[in-house]
Order: sequence, then structure tokens, then C-alpha cells
Amino acid sequence: MTLQAEDRRRGLDGFFAPRSIAVIGASDDPERIGGRPLHFCLNSGFSGPIYPVNPSRDTVQGLPAFADLDAVPGLVDLAILAVSADRIADTLRACGRKGARAAVIFSAGFAELGADGQAAQGGLVRIARENGMRLLGPNCLGFYAAASGACGTFSSALQGGMPARGGIGLITQSGAYGTHLLQMAKERRLGVAGWVSTGNEADVTVADCLAHMVEDPSVTAIGIYMEGVNQPETLLSALERARALRKPVVIMKVGASEVGAQAMQSHTASLAGSDASFQAAIEQAGALRTETTEQMFDILYAASVAPLPSGDRLGVLTVSGGAGVLMADAAAKHGLQVPPMPADAIDRMLLRNPFASPRNPVDITAQAINDFDLIPDYLTEMMRSGDYDAYVGFFTSWAGADRLGPLIFDALTRALDGFDKPFVMVGLLGDDLAARYDAAGIPSFADPSRAVAVLGALARLRAGFDRSGVAGILPDIGDPALPATQVSEAAAKARLAKAGIPCLPEEVARDADSAVALATAMGLPVAMKILSPDIAHKTDIGGVALGLNSADSVRDAARRMLTDIPRRMPDAHIEGVLITPMAGEGVELILGTQRDPIMGPMVMIGMGGILAEVAPDVVLARAPVTPDQALEMLGRLRAAALLDGVRGRPAADKAAVADAISRLSVLAFANADQIESIEINPLLARPDGVLALDALIVPRGHTEGEA
Amino acid sequence: MTLQAEDRRRGLDGFFAPRSIAVIGASDDPERIGGRPLHFCLNSGFSGPIYPVNPSRDTVQGLPAFADLDAVPGLVDLAILAVSADRIADTLRACGRKGARAAVIFSAGFAELGADGQAAQGGLVRIARENGMRLLGPNCLGFYAAASGACGTFSSALQGGMPARGGIGLITQSGAYGTHLLQMAKERRLGVAGWVSTGNEADVTVADCLAHMVEDPSVTAIGIYMEGVNQPETLLSALERARALRKPVVIMKVGASEVGAQAMQSHTASLAGSDASFQAAIEQAGALRTETTEQMFDILYAASVAPLPSGDRLGVLTVSGGAGVLMADAAAKHGLQVPPMPADAIDRMLLRNPFASPRNPVDITAQAINDFDLIPDYLTEMMRSGDYDAYVGFFTSWAGADRLGPLIFDALTRALDGFDKPFVMVGLLGDDLAARYDAAGIPSFADPSRAVAVLGALARLRAGFDRSGVAGILPDIGDPALPATQVSEAAAKARLAKAGIPCLPEEVARDADSAVALATAMGLPVAMKILSPDIAHKTDIGGVALGLNSADSVRDAARRMLTDIPRRMPDAHIEGVLITPMAGEGVELILGTQRDPIMGPMVMIGMGGILAEVAPDVVLARAPVTPDQALEMLGRLRAAALLDGVRGRPAADKAAVADAISRLSVLAFANADQIESIEINPLLARPDGVLALDALIVPRGHTEGEA
Repeated sequence: MTLQAEDRRRGLDGFFAPRSIAVIGASDDPERIGGRPLHFCLNSGFSGPIYPVNPSRDTVQGLPAFADLDAVPGLVDLAILAVSADRIADTLRACGRKGARAAVIFSAGFAELGADGQAAQGGLVRIARENGMRLLGPNCLGFYAAASGACGTFSSALQGGMPARGGIGLITQSGAYGTHLLQMAKERRLGVAGWVSTGNEADVTVADCLAHMVEDPSVTAIGIYMEGVNQPETLLSALERARALRKPVVIMKVGASEVGAQAMQSHTASLAGSDASFQAAIEQAGALRTETTEQMFDILYAASVAPLPSGDRLGVLTVSGGAGVLMADAAAKHGLQVPPMPADAIDRMLLRNPFASPRNPVDITAQAINDFDLIPDYLTEMMRSGDYDAYVGFFTSWAGADRLGPLIFDALTRALDGFDKPFVMVGLLGDDLAARYDAAGIPSFADPSRAVAVLGALARLRAGFDRSGVAGILPDIGDPALPATQVSEAAAKARLAKAGIPCLPEEVARDADSAVALATAMGLPVAMKILSPDIAHKTDIGGVALGLNSADSVRDAARRMLTDIPRRMPDAHIEGVLITPMAGEGVELILGTQRDPIMGPMVMIGMGGILAEVAPDVVLARAPVTPDQALEMLGRLRAAALLDGVRGRPAADKAAVADAISRLSVLAFANADQIESIEINPLLARPDGVLALDALIVPRGHTEGEA
Repeated sequence: MTLQAEDRRRGLDGFFAPRSIAVIGASDDPERIGGRPLHFCLNSGFSGPIYPVNPSRDTVQGLPAFADLDAVPGLVDLAILAVSADRIADTLRACGRKGARAAVIFSAGFAELGADGQAAQGGLVRIARENGMRLLGPNCLGFYAAASGACGTFSSALQGGMPARGGIGLITQSGAYGTHLLQMAKERRLGVAGWVSTGNEADVTVADCLAHMVEDPSVTAIGIYMEGVNQPETLLSALERARALRKPVVIMKVGASEVGAQAMQSHTASLAGSDASFQAAIEQAGALRTETTEQMFDILYAASVAPLPSGDRLGVLTVSGGAGVLMADAAAKHGLQVPPMPADAIDRMLLRNPFASPRNPVDITAQAINDFDLIPDYLTEMMRSGDYDAYVGFFTSWAGADRLGPLIFDALTRALDGFDKPFVMVGLLGDDLAARYDAAGIPSFADPSRAVAVLGALARLRAGFDRSGVAGILPDIGDPALPATQVSEAAAKARLAKAGIPCLPEEVARDADSAVALATAMGLPVAMKILSPDIAHKTDIGGVALGLNSADSVRDAARRMLTDIPRRMPDAHIEGVLITPMAGEGVELILGTQRDPIMGPMVMIGMGGILAEVAPDVVLARAPVTPDQALEMLGRLRAAALLDGVRGRPAADKAAVADAISRLSVLAFANADQIESIEINPLLARPDGVLALDALIVPRGHTEGEA
């Protein structure tokens, strides 16, 4: 554990492993907000002293009560503040006097109300800082820690009993949805190590809680529900730690849709970055994002029961051909391969059971009912000869049946004993049998598609773990400094060329005669473009001419551009026309960077052309990326195959494209404070190298030229 | 009910509503295959006589047993054959003598074993036909009919009790997966009207069962699991009936993926059509296809509890802002809109509760806990002013809580009383409360994303119902006959022109001189293409030249094509070069037809160009389609916006594109026996009309020319 990580973990120990707890505003009624934390702590096995503070009672829920915090005899390590907003500041000061390391504030009435509330909230943080205290909330539902039994929460999810103990840590910004999450976990009998809701995040954030849970050895997998991102750097470094410790983190973040993002801005004060940037950044750090709550729990459940698959090869064992096909379909959808068994193994399996269809899916058929050993025998053959990374098995209703169920359980556990690949069971097992399967390291699902989806997710998690943080070496782009002012296209291209991104030679002509002279010297045919910092989309106003193959056509084009365009855009500063040789054939890409307000500079590669504009095909990553990472980005384009050559066209130089992506990402990263965006459109990917044909650099705080 | 439909329904009444049942091979052991149907019938309320046939016992499970069928005193309406394959034929003949209308054959050992088994199975069908008997199976798990209590099945899904009674009909080709389906339905406490597994489908098919259930008024929604399609016309006409009766049909069909389709071919003898054609055809007929079993049950459940939404406008009511955003995200993903409330309604709601964020999602916030009437009041306001087509509500854990739960139930049912739009509840309610919600017409889900997904599916179902079978009128294409032999591109274009699909004027030149003469007469610039029935992809071999704008360039191009290409492809018959005027600007599309072995001629429209080739953007429909249907197909292209004009380009003439799609579909439909495929690539969509620039007609049984 790094020192910093250890610090961050200790910083929240006052919550999750307190030596003593005081509940300020404690109620004798276990149903009330001030009564619940006490009631929960008394029922969760918390072993330290608990001090109810209530000026009007001698005892609260059977414990001696204290009139105020100062009257508490011992040290108060964790303070749970179940008092109204107007009493929070004074109470916090009293907590400080008692040496509390941690305070939970349930009350709303702070930053979520606007400027006044924000100021009041800032006051709370100051008191906490002065007293070396960490704050959870305000406007939160608190937390629950299974190991210590500390229950600093009034969430109704704990009514009716604590969740099962286990390795899953849950972090949620929302209390209301967090309660639903904890209830869902209880309903599914998932083993929970801890749960924390962060509310307004005046001090402790989702990222802080993640950093804590990542270092907690009793937490084996972490699920996060978040709305905004308050500490992106902490979040990403905690994810990198989780990757290093190979601890799965699954994140639900809302606001992906346009309406969702709008609704979110009215709901949280969080600065909204782009959803795509968030997703790219956390996946680069090895976390998985899910769209639905059920998916999140499916993955957390399976990851805390079974090992992660070391690759994407799925073995499908079934007694129903149709279910086998169904699972093969699901595999294709979730990024898993279903490669066939080797021919000799198929022969052996057919010899054993001529009715079988043992290719993969391996269909034992209903013969299994006559010879139950077929199940372990075929599975063993698949494990030995098929070399799959993950397995899924379907045995119709037998697995949950009274007589056949135990036979299948024994058969499977016998075959899987000591095996370190995940096997997921499909079947309706009932709670008790499912728990036995869990204990044997076999997660189970009723829906075969869901079982396969989970294996796909686990494989992606594992692949994320296996990708090191920064694979390879970042290219040297020389002096990275970029001017913080708008630059012309020519200057932009010159700057990119200096950073090692090849651009076509180009010359500026101020009038038609010099255009002809330059074009002739360069060699016909040439392309010509209007040169102006104020014109972003040159094609739209007739500012681009291609394939000019005579002196006359060069002169005509230059005259037209230099007279027509100023007439149509009198405010545009026009510096002349740019002349370049025709670039030749290649695949048109768009390469760019964009500063995300949360995640910082992102680099983007996409297919170019007008079709891509209406159906974008784009891959994003947080800058900087190495050439290896850039190559992997290229492979994720929907039309990636275009770069390999189609219909006899030559393949594009992908290494050169990756190099350009990497260099541009380094440039954007080094100038994060200066640059809003860079766009190279098109970047021509040729059989031998790339060429930036057009470039735009937009400094921060500068709006793009007339479009 | 049409006469034909009534016939089809009566044809299966011998199974689902038999007057008497004989079980041949009846066992006294209720666990054995021959014992289970009897045991189930005795426990399911079947009220007619049941005759166990067993030569070695006097009684079976308490009923008097008979030595053989001929010894049974009364009429045998339904015969359940629990005997081995070798005894089936004789037993069927005996069933015929007893006047049975229906026979269920469990035994395997027929068509699934190959040619011999197929012949034996054909023999069973002959016996059945001769005796006016319908056959279910062989190699099936039989059926269950709730209304009559007839249980012609040994599926272990009925062990431990019958499913709850209700309106859901389940049809499954696979017995093993069908058993799992029925178990899942029981586990979810869904109300089941009937369940049937068709196995080898020697006689009764999935399509027959659908036709029956569609006409059965006690069935309100139907779920189908299928592998192959044995009677596509029956299936599609039953789906059209279901649409006319507004009865939702949800279909899972496996084999969508490449590996899945391969595995399927080794599993069933069904002729494999394309998965995309299947999906297009059933969706045109108003059914919904789902990928997962859970989705299927979610939709069947919700459709049998709540009304279908009449549009795609979703109202989101929540007490958690984050959950509201989550549901808005899910709406975008599942094709639903989340339009805002009108401004005056927002004002009224804010006046009532200043903490609310009542735009849509309408977030009541935790204020609801202080004033529970906010829930019905806001919902009523949404219903009155928001005019949404569907509603979803999230109330954290309160809905399932002891004290708050009943308050929320009362509040919601009060507000929704007499309202005919679906409202879906998100919450963990527990079985009893969920059943109360169901009875009140409110389906409930624990996962908010799943709740919204279901509403999206119900909206699609309803939209499918609202689309009439054939909207508008098919165009008149004159004499539709097409030659059944391979034709040249010129002849193909001439034929398409005759059908009303505009093609560029074109002339054939046999040598360079006549090419120059023709081009000059036509007006330069021109395009030139090699003319040969044996060359499909002309670009790849230098067989296309564009923008020839001088006599010299025309002569050069013609010479090159007429000498180079014969040298490279000596076997290709070359008729000359085609000369056409340059087509001008437009959007390049691909329009084609392809005969699907199951679904017949399909028409396809897609984006053209090389990018589309590696990331296809295509919409399929079963031919013929009307221009209105074709226009709707265009709107479903991923890059549909390209046709509306991008970056100042003019919009394409979508009506002309739709007309061309429709005409081509009529041509393909009328020549289904003659034509394998037609491809127009590109079809140029111009601002004023379309132009077929290249065309290929492939007759049936003819392989495409060298590619």
C-alpha cells in the first residue's frame, strides 16, 4: 500500500471502523431518523461504546443518554448528527472538542439550496478541517460497515435486518437510490462488506470512498452509483490502484442521454463533463461501466464468487441444443468467442455418446438423464482439450429438481475441483441450492443470456486489469508549447508538423498570380483553400478547390476565392489562399482533441467523410495515449476494417495513424491549460504514412470562427 | 373469427380442450414419464374421463386401468403416448380406431436421427391424416392447458404444482428449454393460460399453436421460443390475426449469431433463412422479437397487466433526482421521448412544493415523505397536463415499506383510477404487494431500467398494431415478368426502367470509335463501364471510368477496357462498354432484393459507398412494400439524416427513393420463383428523383459472376 493510499484509507477509518459512536439527536423510537442509527448499531454487532445524546431522556433504546456531547464521558470517534440544519455547525464544534475523527450529517438544507446553503456548507467544512475531522454529507443517508458493525445511517434498507456479510462494497451519491441498491442487494442475498452514500460531498466524495474500499482487504468487488464527478483525479488513481490489486470496480453513472444530462444539471451542482469522456477515462483505468443496476449486481455477484476469465473463449455445455444456440448468440453479442472443440476430442465424446453434438456448444442431449456421468466427463474433456477461458452450463430443470439436482451439483463440483476458470450455472436453483453453488465458486442465473453477459463483462474486466496503465512509451514531440491564441490553418499545420505529425507542404499566396507561380513550382495538380482564422467550414462557402491541373484553373480559383468570399463574409480576416499538392488516395479520418471540463484533454479518432458526420464512428481516450493504446483505439472503430483495405484497395498505415494519435494526445495533454480543441480533418491514412490535410487549433476561452 | 381461423383453432381443440384423455403407457409412479401426465391431470382440475392404459395393472394412480386402448369403454379424444418409438405406429392406429382427435408423442427416435427416422415419422403423419387426427411431437414434452386442466406432458416444470392461472400463452419448439421457460413463469408467478412444446413438428407446428392461441379469448399475450421456422406463411398470417385482435406476440428465435446459426444447423433439420429476414418479416406483421428470455417475460407480464401506450411520450415521476435521470437515460435507449411538462403546470407544481424539480423527470424530492398527497397530486397533474403515453414511478424503498407502502399504493391507485395509460412501478414490493399492484393494473419491477425498457417494448408493440398490414397502395409496374436467365447490365437497367425505376440513358459501344461518337452525341462528360454478364464488381478490375470530358479521354478509356480486361479475365463474355452521361450529385444508396429461403423475397435499402461496406447500414423488409412502408424503412437507416441534406447539401428526394424501393419490391415479389436477387448499386438519390446507375439481376439457381 502506498503511503498516500494508506493515508486516504485511514482518513475514513473514523467512519468504517470507529472506536466509539455518539448519536446526537438520538431517539428512543427505532423508526425515527434519530432512532434508526442507534437501533441498527445495536443490532449489527458494533462492539465499541455507543453514546446517545438527547437532553430530554435518561435512557435511549436502553442505553444511558447524555444531555450533550460534552457530557459524554469517553472519546467520541464517530459522531452521527441527526439534528436539524441550524444546529449542525454548533454540534460539529462540539464533536471537535470531543476529538471525533468522523461526522455524518444527514440533514438537508445546504449546498443543494443555492448560494446561501453553499456558504453554510463551506462553514461546516472549515470547522471539520480545523478539528481534523472528516465529514460525510450533508444531505446524505450515511453508511453501513459490516466488519465493525458501525451503522451511521437511517436508510430503511437496513430495516428488517442487516444484509448478508460478504465482499461487495457499494458507494452511492444518491441516498434514495442508494437505499434501493442496498435493498436489491439484500433481496438477492449478496454478501455486502459496506455501503456508503455521499450526498452533497462537502468533504468525503465517491472517489474518497472508492480509494478507501480499494485498500480494504475485506472488500473484493466494488459497485458505484454516481451522478456527477467531483474528484476525477482521485477517482482515476483509485481505479488504477484497484486495477493493480485486481479488484473489480463497476460503475453506474447516470446522465448519458440528452434529456438525462439536462435533468441532471437541474439535480446536481456537479460540473457536467461529457458522458463519453467519462466512460473512456474510467475504462482506460480498468473499471467497467454498466447501464443498468441489475447488470452491476450481476457482475459484482459473479466476480465475488468466481475467478475472472483470462480471455474471451467460452465453452458452452448444454443438454438442450436450442439453449446452446441461445448461449452462442449471447456470446457473440457480449464479445465472447465460441471456438469448436478439437476434432479428436469430438471423436472421443461421440464415442462415449453417439447422440451428442459435441462441437461447442457441446450438447449432451437428453442422454444425460440416462447417464449422469456424461456431465462431468464432457466438462472435464472441455476443460482438458477445449482450453476455454470461461464456461456456462444449462441442464434444463434438472439442476433445481429434488432427485437430479444433487447429482448435478456433485458432478459439477467434482469436475471443477481445483479449476481456476469461471463456470456459470444456468438454472432455477432456489435460494439454498444457489447458496451451495455460490460457496462452491459457481454463480448461477435463471436467464442464460444474462449468464453469458456476465461472463462477457468479467472477461472485459480482466482484460482491463491486464492492460497496464500506460502501455509502451509516449513519443517525444520536442518543445510542446502551443500558442494560447487562435492561429491560422497554416500555423496550425506547421505546429503539428513540428510535433511529428506529417502535413502536406503548403504555401500561401496573396493573389492569383503568385498562386499560379507557387502551384507550378510545386507541381500540378494542386489543391487550394481559403486561408482565414475566421472560417471553420471552408467547403460550405466555396473555399476549397481540388485537382486544379492547369495554370488557368489555378488562377480562376484563386481569383474567385479572393473576391467572392470577402464579399460574403466581410468580417472574416482573409490571409490569402493555401496551395498544396493533391494528397493522393487514402482513408479519410478525423483526429482531434477536446478538453473535457472533468476529465481534461481527450483524444478522438473517427472515420471521416460526410457519412460519418450523420452516423459518427468515433473512439475517445483520455490524453496522453501511447502508440499501442492508439492502435487499440483504431481497432474499436466500427469501420475499422476499412483501414485493412477493402475491395483490393491497399491497407492504410495503421502504425502511422497510431503514431499521429499519440503525438497529438501528448501535445494536447502538455497544453491542457491553453488549448480547448485541436481538429485534423481530414487526416489522410495512406498506405505509407499519414497526412494532415487540414487543421484547426482552438485556444481556451476562444470561440470557434464562423461556421 | 374467419372460417379458416376457426378451423385452425378447432383443429387443436383435441389437445387443449379434450372431452376425454387416455394415457398409453400409464405408470403408477407419478415421477415416471408415463406417470406424470396422469398425475398432473389428476391435480389440474381436468373434469373429463381419464383412461390409463397399462396391461399389467388393474389400477394406475387410483384409476381403473385398461389392458389396451380397444378395451377403453368410452371415446378417447386425446391420446397421450408414453410408449417407446417402436410401438408408436401401432398405438396411433389404435387411437384412430377410438376416434381420437389428438395424439401427443413424447418418444424421440424419429426425424432427428436422419433419413430412416424421417421416413418413420412420415409414416406416423400418414396414419394421423388417414384418421383425421392431429399429432403433437414426436420428440416433444407435450402441453399444458389451464382452462381444461389437460396436461399432456411429462415436463418437470409442473412438478410441485400448476402455474398460476392467467392470460399468457407459451409456445416452445424445445422441450428442455420450454420446461425452463415454464419454470421461470412459475417462479415469477405469471398467470399462464397454456404451454405447448412442439418437438419435431411432424404435424403441429409452432405456427399452428400460435394460430390456435391467437383465437383463444382466454389468451391475452403470447410468448414463443423457436429455433427453425417450418410454416412461415401460417406464422405470418397468425401474426396478422394477432395484430388485428391487438394481442401481443413476443418471439425469441435463436441462431442470430454466426456460431449460433452453425450450431443450430447441427441441431435442427429446419431450413435456415437469414436471421435478419425473419426479424424484418415478423416485425412487419406486428410481433416483437426479444433477445433474452427475461425480456420476453417482462413484456408478456406487463402486457397482460397494463394497457399498451399509444405513443412514445414517457412521464417520469420520482422522489430521487438521480433515479429520474437514470430512467430518462433508459428512455432514450429504448426509443421513448421524455418531453417536459408545460410551463404553467410546472409553475403550479412548484407553488405546491418549492423543492420539487417538476420538468420531466418530475422529481418530488424527499418532500413526499412530509406530504404524501404530493404523489397523487403530481401524478394527476402529469396525466392532465403532460399528456404522456406511459408513466414510470420511483419511490425509493417506501413502496415496499410497512407503513409507507400502503399509503403509496392508495395514492397511486386513486390517481390512476379509470386511466387507460400504462403506469409501471419501480420498487421491491414483495410478492403479496406486487400481486396487489398487478391486480390494480400496475406492473412492477425492481430495476428502473428494466421498467422503462418494458414500456419501450410495449410502445413498439402498440405501434406495430397501429401500422396496418399494407399501408397505402402498391405501385403498378406493368407486366412484371422477368426473364429467368442471367441478363446484361443494360438489359437489367432496361427492365428496371420499364418497372418505373429511373435509369440513366445509356448506349453500348463495341469499339473505341463508336464510344467517342456516342459520347459526343450524348454530351460530355460521360461515364463508361465495361459491359459483361460475368463481371459483378467492375471497379475492382478497372472497368469503370468517370468524368470523361474529351473525345480523347473517351477513346483512351474504351481502348483500355476492351483490351486489358479480356486479357485479365479471358473467360468473361464482354459485350462492349456502356456509355452514360455523368449522373451528377446525390446520395449513393444500395437498393436490392434477395430471396430468403424461408421468408421469400426481401427488399433491402442501405447506404452506399465503401464505408457502408465495412459497417453496413441497411434496412430489410419482406416484399412487397408500399411507398409509405418504404419511406418508413428509409427513416430507420442509421445515417438517415444524410438524406435530409448535411452541411448545405440539398435534401434527397425521399419520395422518389421510396417509390423505387416499392417498385423493386413488387418486381421481386411477382418473380419470386424466377429471381434470386436484384442489386441496384448505386442508386443515386438526387434532389429531384433517383437514378439507378448500375444493376444486376441474378436468376434463381444461377451463381453470381466472378467477383
